[in-house]
Amino acid sequence: MKKTILSGMRPTGNLHLGNLYGALSNWIELQKEDYNRFYFVADWHALTTGFKDSKEIPDNSIEMVADWLSFGLDEKKSTLFVQSLVKEHAELFLLLSMATPVGWLERVPSYKDQIAQLGKDKTSNYGFLGYPVLMAVDIIIYKAHLVPVGIDQVAHLEFTREIVRHFNSNVGKDIFIEPQPLLTQSAKILGLDGRKMSKSYGNAIYLSDTKEETEKKLKVMFTDPRRKRRTDPGVAEECGIFMLHKIFTEKNKQDEIKHACSKAEIGCVECKKILSKNLNDALEPIRQKRQELINKKDDIRDILSEGSKKASKYAKNTLEEVRDAIFSSKRIV
Amino acid sequence: MKKTILSGMRPTGNLHLGNLYGALSNWIELQKEDYNRFYFVADWHALTTGFKDSKEIPDNSIEMVADWLSFGLDEKKSTLFVQSLVKEHAELFLLLSMATPVGWLERVPSYKDQIAQLGKDKTSNYGFLGYPVLMAVDIIIYKAHLVPVGIDQVAHLEFTREIVRHFNSNVGKDIFIEPQPLLTQSAKILGLDGRKMSKSYGNAIYLSDTKEETEKKLKVMFTDPRRKRRTDPGVAEECGIFMLHKIFTEKNKQDEIKHACSKAEIGCVECKKILSKNLNDALEPIRQKRQELINKKDDIRDILSEGSKKASKYAKNTLEEVRDAIFSSKRIV
Repeated sequence: MKKTILSGMRPTGNLHLGNLYGALSNWIELQKEDYNRFYFVADWHALTTGFKDSKEIPDNSIEMVADWLSFGLDEKKSTLFVQSLVKEHAELFLLLSMATPVGWLERVPSYKDQIAQLGKDKTSNYGFLGYPVLMAVDIIIYKAHLVPVGIDQVAHLEFTREIVRHFNSNVGKDIFIEPQPLLTQSAKILGLDGRKMSKSYGNAIYLSDTKEETEKKLKVMFTDPRRKRRTDPGVAEECGIFMLHKIFTEKNKQDEIKHACSKAEIGCVECKKILSKNLNDALEPIRQKRQELINKKDDIRDILSEGSKKASKYAKNTLEEVRDAIFSSKRIV
Repeated sequence: MKKTILSGMRPTGNLHLGNLYGALSNWIELQKEDYNRFYFVADWHALTTGFKDSKEIPDNSIEMVADWLSFGLDEKKSTLFVQSLVKEHAELFLLLSMATPVGWLERVPSYKDQIAQLGKDKTSNYGFLGYPVLMAVDIIIYKAHLVPVGIDQVAHLEFTREIVRHFNSNVGKDIFIEPQPLLTQSAKILGLDGRKMSKSYGNAIYLSDTKEETEKKLKVMFTDPRRKRRTDPGVAEECGIFMLHKIFTEKNKQDEIKHACSKAEIGCVECKKILSKNLNDALEPIRQKRQELINKKDDIRDILSEGSKKASKYAKNTLEEVRDAIFSSKRIV
């Protein structure tokens, strides 16, 4: 039987290079293999920290999916859907709530981390505490076997498996399967300030940026701090610019730059110029495709609408099995 | 504008005299007034303490609604529906979760009471902690103005109003109205053992009991403990049998019995015989109607199916307003 893989992204809006050459590249890579694929817009997840930015979720979702599609995600190969359009997620969330010990949720390490990071104000909601339950629902409602994740997400998936075991034992039937992580490697991509590239740090380069905006951003981007002067040699492997060369520049040229940097034979300005050209050359056709999509947002909506209907069918089947298990195949009506 | 009232019952199965002449009588009484009425089977609530008895929920629900209908609840005057058939309850539960501080839920007095009463095992679930959220959903999704409750439920309703205020302030719009309690008086009804009549105490007389079963139960029912011997005078007002006389026996005869009891001029056996006859006379036509309904369960299912569709329309409208408020009238699809 074909295995099912599933993953989702919160609709944060435009994707940056870190998203594109991180999770999204992996999703697209997986289209080459023989899987049943589901990728979804996690719009309800975007509400777990409150309604403050909720008004931007619909537009952000469309922008994000425009990035997905232009970058190479193919709606014919993968089911692309919107979490909130598959109402069964909400019903299973409610049912799973009845079989998830509250103490488990309180002890999820990332729960306390997030409270510390985001502050009590954004994290004190009942829904935020239940975030791992909603995440489990997203996965198991499609009986996904594999979830492409980075190493930092492995613990979350272990929690999903615990919920699955507990639920199955509660209803006395193995309704759900335990999803396994499909460990993926992501290119390390730093932001303009040398920290990890992240929307919230304001240090990101977006697919939606123009050629000129991208050039401008690269010009001010941090390089290896060893190279205070043009004559100081650097360590390319530790430079954010070189990390991008690794994606956008051909291998021979990469090696040449690395060597020249270590001898201070190339300056950061010149090195950035080479990257600028290569990066823009690579992104230009994708940007164009993106612009076409943005001009036809109804096409994006149609894709998501169709995908959500397809996803619903799976979800509905699972819910019937769940109800059968809970109510012993009986129904009130 | 016509006001909306709403109430629900957990599907515990057959109703006993305490249920019938308590909450249900009030529901039926309210049919005489000019309200928009919703009464529902709270089947999802029955899961907050786990799935142990979940297999009985469908049959119990049908039995309970048979009691409702035979006792006088009229599907033409009231919308009778099943909570789990109106999926919008689950969606609003999820959305409301994002605007309910978890600390509020932990501090609900009945939460700690229930843990003490039912034990950690039945109450440690995330869904149990969120029980007041689900209760709030049931009420506000229909924008109910009034909820017929006993005095012990007033605190729960105050909590619903707090959630409403918090949610409205979160989305910046007065989507929900604050429901008020419609304080109802219930006859005091004791069980066979002198404690409050309750299914869980095993001391109840059910509408589904036959005439003979009812007589037999009354024969062994506790009376005023002052009347150890036939010659001991009693205090009728403190006797479970007399509490039932107050419902089933005409006023003159009540006064007569009360007086005779205080003088030991009537024995408990005789007093029970009078009650037995009156109670059975009153219940017999209801029992017959009940039996007819039980023989046509599909009629009950049809009523609940129709009612749930009607309820769904209201719920769907409310959900649209909620989504408009959260997403600023925009949609992904």
